[in-house]
Amino acid sequence: MIVILKQGASQKQIEELSTLIKSYGVDIHFSQGTLSTVLGLVGDTSAIDSGSIQAQTIVADVKRVQEPYKKANRKFHPDNTVISIGDAKIGDGSLSVIAGPCSVESAEQICEVARRVKQSGATLLRGGAFKPRTSPYAFQGLRAHGIELLLEAKKETGLPIVTEIMSVSHLEFFEDVDVIQVGARNMQNFELLKELGRLRKPILLKRGLSNTIEETLMSAEYIMSGGNGDVILCERGIRTFEGFTRNTLDISAIPIFKRLSHLPVIVDPSHASGIPWLIEPLALASVAAGADGLIIEVHNNPTKALSDGAQSITPDEFDKLSVSIRNTVAVLR
Amino acid sequence: MIVILKQGASQKQIEELSTLIKSYGVDIHFSQGTLSTVLGLVGDTSAIDSGSIQAQTIVADVKRVQEPYKKANRKFHPDNTVISIGDAKIGDGSLSVIAGPCSVESAEQICEVARRVKQSGATLLRGGAFKPRTSPYAFQGLRAHGIELLLEAKKETGLPIVTEIMSVSHLEFFEDVDVIQVGARNMQNFELLKELGRLRKPILLKRGLSNTIEETLMSAEYIMSGGNGDVILCERGIRTFEGFTRNTLDISAIPIFKRLSHLPVIVDPSHASGIPWLIEPLALASVAAGADGLIIEVHNNPTKALSDGAQSITPDEFDKLSVSIRNTVAVLR
Amino acid sequence: MIVILKQGASQKQIEELSTLIKSYGVDIHFSQGTLSTVLGLVGDTSAIDSGSIQAQTIVADVKRVQEPYKKANRKFHPDNTVISIGDAKIGDGSLSVIAGPCSVESAEQICEVARRVKQSGATLLRGGAFKPRTSPYAFQGLRAHGIELLLEAKKETGLPIVTEIMSVSHLEFFEDVDVIQVGARNMQNFELLKELGRLRKPILLKRGLSNTIEETLMSAEYIMSGGNGDVILCERGIRTFEGFTRNTLDISAIPIFKRLSHLPVIVDPSHASGIPWLIEPLALASVAAGADGLIIEVHNNPTKALSDGAQSITPDEFDKLSVSIRNTVAVLR
Amino acid sequence: MIVILKQGASQKQIEELSTLIKSYGVDIHFSQGTLSTVLGLVGDTSAIDSGSIQAQTIVADVKRVQEPYKKANRKFHPDNTVISIGDAKIGDGSLSVIAGPCSVESAEQICEVARRVKQSGATLLRGGAFKPRTSPYAFQGLRAHGIELLLEAKKETGLPIVTEIMSVSHLEFFEDVDVIQVGARNMQNFELLKELGRLRKPILLKRGLSNTIEETLMSAEYIMSGGNGDVILCERGIRTFEGFTRNTLDISAIPIFKRLSHLPVIVDPSHASGIPWLIEPLALASVAAGADGLIIEVHNNPTKALSDGAQSITPDEFDKLSVSIRNTVAVLR
Repeated sequence: MIVILKQGASQKQIEELSTLIKSYGVDIHFSQGTLSTVLGLVGDTSAIDSGSIQAQTIVADVKRVQEPYKKANRKFHPDNTVISIGDAKIGDGSLSVIAGPCSVESAEQICEVARRVKQSGATLLRGGAFKPRTSPYAFQGLRAHGIELLLEAKKETGLPIVTEIMSVSHLEFFEDVDVIQVGARNMQNFELLKELGRLRKPILLKRGLSNTIEETLMSAEYIMSGGNGDVILCERGIRTFEGFTRNTLDISAIPIFKRLSHLPVIVDPSHASGIPWLIEPLALASVAAGADGLIIEVHNNPTKALSDGAQSITPDEFDKLSVSIRNTVAVLR
Repeated sequence: MIVILKQGASQKQIEELSTLIKSYGVDIHFSQGTLSTVLGLVGDTSAIDSGSIQAQTIVADVKRVQEPYKKANRKFHPDNTVISIGDAKIGDGSLSVIAGPCSVESAEQICEVARRVKQSGATLLRGGAFKPRTSPYAFQGLRAHGIELLLEAKKETGLPIVTEIMSVSHLEFFEDVDVIQVGARNMQNFELLKELGRLRKPILLKRGLSNTIEETLMSAEYIMSGGNGDVILCERGIRTFEGFTRNTLDISAIPIFKRLSHLPVIVDPSHASGIPWLIEPLALASVAAGADGLIIEVHNNPTKALSDGAQSITPDEFDKLSVSIRNTVAVLR
Repeated sequence: MIVILKQGASQKQIEELSTLIKSYGVDIHFSQGTLSTVLGLVGDTSAIDSGSIQAQTIVADVKRVQEPYKKANRKFHPDNTVISIGDAKIGDGSLSVIAGPCSVESAEQICEVARRVKQSGATLLRGGAFKPRTSPYAFQGLRAHGIELLLEAKKETGLPIVTEIMSVSHLEFFEDVDVIQVGARNMQNFELLKELGRLRKPILLKRGLSNTIEETLMSAEYIMSGGNGDVILCERGIRTFEGFTRNTLDISAIPIFKRLSHLPVIVDPSHASGIPWLIEPLALASVAAGADGLIIEVHNNPTKALSDGAQSITPDEFDKLSVSIRNTVAVLR
Repeated sequence: MIVILKQGASQKQIEELSTLIKSYGVDIHFSQGTLSTVLGLVGDTSAIDSGSIQAQTIVADVKRVQEPYKKANRKFHPDNTVISIGDAKIGDGSLSVIAGPCSVESAEQICEVARRVKQSGATLLRGGAFKPRTSPYAFQGLRAHGIELLLEAKKETGLPIVTEIMSVSHLEFFEDVDVIQVGARNMQNFELLKELGRLRKPILLKRGLSNTIEETLMSAEYIMSGGNGDVILCERGIRTFEGFTRNTLDISAIPIFKRLSHLPVIVDPSHASGIPWLIEPLALASVAAGADGLIIEVHNNPTKALSDGAQSITPDEFDKLSVSIRNTVAVLR
């Protein structure tokens, strides 16, 4: 961290500032120039609140030169993190496809979708049990029973399951879940992240609708600093002024996450676009940009889906898409 | 809700769609034109997932003509909701000022700030105990002990207290808190909203960083549909490309919230801007635009604040600001 | 400008960089720290392309400490610029109201609106002659003839006129126009700005839909660096994800422009919101935030307006609004 | 276009509205439902200002069912437009690569870059002569002389040239230019678009920083409605809150443009990201998403570039990138 002082700071003010900075347990190197005095902070600056430094009258600017995340930082962990879930591996250079319906609706539905997406090559099954819905009057998911049905589908097909958690108080229901998803709306639910940091289970962390890349890595850091290093980052579109798509897929986030962090990165083209015919081009683009996986909504009867039917594809469409994806992976990896 | 069909829909397809729509318990009125067939849905459409209707092959477009919120809707509750907290009233046409530090740091600090802001005319005391911080390494607040200190300050000054909740699992600590704040990052933490709907205590609901006005009202609806009608809406800035301010205060949200809903609306100029010298113009603008209240960060020693010092003002500055605000209210109300 | 070098830069690399920097005509002060070497650039850095410095292998970061605008900068011109247009003054602490229709449509229309807004206290008349329309098939304005009609209305009422220019090639038609408006879509039409810099006539410069505050000041600098110092800045809303209003009025831009620059600042609540019932609260909020003026769309028959009727108010409504505005100004100034 | 009336509209009001609508030369079909009256407008609605309809007291909502662009619309021109420029073809299923420096700086520089990018497989040469710079003090390009140098490089290498126009008044200098570029900041400089519509020369139209997909197509329509059908659309990133990249590449825009329009679509990963190491993943992702071409900044000495050096790659890097791109195209097309 570098602190640039305003011209004309008195010796006394500089000493007070130094005392404050040293209280964070870091050393200071002074560079006195004619134009400006610059303080270089040496040591672990991740706990320093840059706003507090900025609040000092004599401070012109504060600049982090080190990223504020450590465990998620590729600088300190050059090798890719590879996460094993059953037979599937995410982050080893292969491409994992997670597929399934927005909501679990019945045993028949989830088992049929599970069989079909497995046949097409999916390696994990997704399905919403606890559903974050904008409206309190909308279908809220089958909740704990939905997880039971997912486990049934897992039993039948062998596919590990991914499902979203919405509250610390539901943790008991997730004991047999293979991967716990943190949805975009909970990306900065820090108390939840802390609890998930105590588990030994992979966490699929979705980027928030208006969160930056750095904030997403800081949320991963919350989980990792608790001792759980198995975090999968997920880009699922951000909010912009463009209204044709539900969100704007930030394709650049894939190579940026991969460069800044060692964590695997997957992409959700279904939620990013909200439009079935965009899923294929966005999926292939994500593969080309270096994604480790994809998460895709598949429903056996999209027109009867209890939620988000408009963006789901059918098992047949998913089968065709899987072929395209495999062909692309074959040549690009 | 109005459903516009594509040209060329078959009678059989229209019947299937009708069956689906009627399963939501609403009636359908058909308007057959040369250019298009339009279905008008009559009844309570708030539980209908418009995405599911949109997913139907023959549907060109779906348009809500009624707002999806009911309890928060001014149409059904024309009179302003007035919320009483101790001697303070929010929403009765007066202007309430909530003031206090970003974080509670010590008994001395919170009591001194409480005394000072009370003298200047604040009617409620704010202070963070559980702090949502982007970094796991940053000061996380005094947590339960912070609430104890707030209650001490309340005892000394008589000011009711407002403090933020971050998790359902902390509810027990909030028993004596007067107003529970839901932070921007938790605006769509629906499980938390549901729990708060079971309380009989005012909730201060902050708009999320990238949430729309309608989504904010839907989150209020979550609380209200649980039986707790005492919701205070808070505009605190949204994320845009402009980087000079931390967020962009959406001043238009004030009159829009007031027109669409009967709930009181307050504004947080401290978080919206992140810059002390912007607090006064934004506060006065908010008063002029019709706000029912303001929430302002005041710290007795901003340069030593453990969080967000850079945007806090001192008790002396707050005192001057209070005079400006009172003068403006006197002439505009 | 401060240039922070990466650790490990060789003496030779530093010398090459120094040569490059000195070629811009500035001096360098070196601050050698343990953690970093920092170069302070002394002199006029406004012509330096920070991207070129950033491109150097050994450069970690480049930070401007001086704003890149000079003539628009309050630091070098502490006093407010006051612009006289006929009897009207903008920037002297009073509030100027510019009013008129989106498009000039006929002599009767513009003269009637002019008479009415003058009676209500407007000090300038606005009206579109050359109209920037998203669609080539929409009404494009009466063009040169529209300006003739504006001049007729000016003759009749004595109100100076404001109208938008869309191309350098139309300059000849603007000879008798009192204030030339640069629309949001042309804010970075730099060739047009340069031409306007050669005139001796006030320019009303609208902030672009997605331009920052700094970029807006840089566009003002283009005009001013050509020798024309009479620039009026206009905030008219920026693009965000919020869809209820056409744009999001950035109310903070008013006090920020006033602090960074000595130029007068006006606000366009009509275009910022696109909704007639929002004009009053946004106008009053702008006054409270320190605006020097307002520009408001008034049409004698909004339902028959050839463009933007939906956001216009009638002369009667404008009259009532003018009273509110005057009352607010009376107490706040 | 569908117009939904408010409940309770009187017969007289409906008649007045009908008269207004018919004045645009379209027919009306009425669908009278219990819940709402819906007017279907039959005919060419592209010239109708929906704001004027919306302004009517009895109108609840206006909904376009037809896109407002005609000549750019794939519905009316199902086949891809293929644009021939010398030996190059854009839009025929192949991938065109346009490469060259941000600014033309000297005959040596542009000729060397031209030779090198040609060797690597580029089919067109780009280079800025008239440069849109945020600051009036920054290098503004060699202007007319820059175009002369580009023509020299063309003579030497045979590569057709692409360069940006900034003003109608410079048209005379572009007579021998092969493709005229309209920059993002001029995308809605409608007077310029109209002039370009009179030419018989391909136009490369860059999407504005905060313009929607539909607005971009409307700007293409401006050029096409003047008689010039050879428009190449270019996605170059939009403005969002994410600050790691200069802009956010909207990858979804590629398949959306291709579906809505028959015009070829190219992508500019250099300006979209502003970061050299992002160019390759973004280029490959664009190919995978269906782009017809790429435009890439190449400078023989990025650290000495007079503008935008930080985002340029060297001819050697471009050569490697070209191999990657060719391999990707080979397998995906």
